[in-house]
Amino acid sequence: MDFEPRATRKDITGALSSPEFFSYGVEAYEACKKRSLTSDIIVEQKKVQEADLVMFQFPLYWFSVPAVLKGWMDRVLCQGFAFDIPGFYDDGLLKGKLAILSITTGGTADMYWKTGVSGDFRYFLWPLQHGTLHFCGFKVLAPHISFAPEFASEEERKGMVASWAQRLKTIWNEEPIPCSPPWYFGQ
Amino acid sequence: MDFEPRATRKDITGALSSPEFFSYGVEAYEACKKRSLTSDIIVEQKKVQEADLVMFQFPLYWFSVPAVLKGWMDRVLCQGFAFDIPGFYDDGLLKGKLAILSITTGGTADMYWKTGVSGDFRYFLWPLQHGTLHFCGFKVLAPHISFAPEFASEEERKGMVASWAQRLKTIWNEEPIPCSPPWYFGQ
Repeated sequence: MDFEPRATRKDITGALSSPEFFSYGVEAYEACKKRSLTSDIIVEQKKVQEADLVMFQFPLYWFSVPAVLKGWMDRVLCQGFAFDIPGFYDDGLLKGKLAILSITTGGTADMYWKTGVSGDFRYFLWPLQHGTLHFCGFKVLAPHISFAPEFASEEERKGMVASWAQRLKTIWNEEPIPCSPPWYFGQ
Repeated sequence: MDFEPRATRKDITGALSSPEFFSYGVEAYEACKKRSLTSDIIVEQKKVQEADLVMFQFPLYWFSVPAVLKGWMDRVLCQGFAFDIPGFYDDGLLKGKLAILSITTGGTADMYWKTGVSGDFRYFLWPLQHGTLHFCGFKVLAPHISFAPEFASEEERKGMVASWAQRLKTIWNEEPIPCSPPWYFGQ
């Protein structure tokens, strides 16, 4: 996907609401209400609107999404479409939908244990799952993490894909995680 | 700044190390060692190399950096330049340098208190300060957060700039923060 990640004034196709002082957030919100956002954003918003479950599949870059996916979040999940004030967290505009992060890492599971990011401490997931997805009203399923496929054998890689395929068979029966601090930071 | 945020094979100017299976991390590492990274990355790496203190000034987008700055991190802070394995955290290749995040927010300080992001709980800073900057060897100064300048009066905005200017006068005397879980997640 070659999505444009940069949030700029080109995202607003009509007249600016405050041309004398450009604020991306304000202008995107107004453009969203007036349906004058640029077409690549609208196309993505339609996909989200039609989805019951949105899966984010990405390699972990600096304990977060790669910039191209960050740009998707910055531009597509704008005020008026994904949230409003009020209208966030449990009242987010995308409530009723599910989301899941499916992540591949560069480092091995062992490395993440050593640096304090393990099954018990999921610090890096907070801004994405809670600060972004839950903020927009999504319920979030437990993330699916495939550790270091690049350093795994062909056999191990097949196992990773198989376990993901297996999980998908019953994913509609899963309960969302509790999006609260203990889930992220341990006791 | 119109920096390209997307990490792609165009970042490698010479022959690929494993053309049959493209891995961005592997290829960027090899290209860094052979000095065959694309020029916009090299230009930025030189700036970092010459700096004693790197200041990241940005508006908070989804509890993180905007995509254009995420892409700067993804592409500029590559293995071989910013870290190696081994050669990370206190042994990161950029050790001896300082970094600081100077952030403007959309929401007011009050909103961040209500959503659990306050002076005592700095969850969202972990991936940036610890997982990225400290990983590369930077010592990190306490972040400078200017809340909701868009909703502030002209007078208040001037006060925000003045307090930043005041802080910069003695910034070289500051001690880095302890980059450990209690700083981020409270007691």
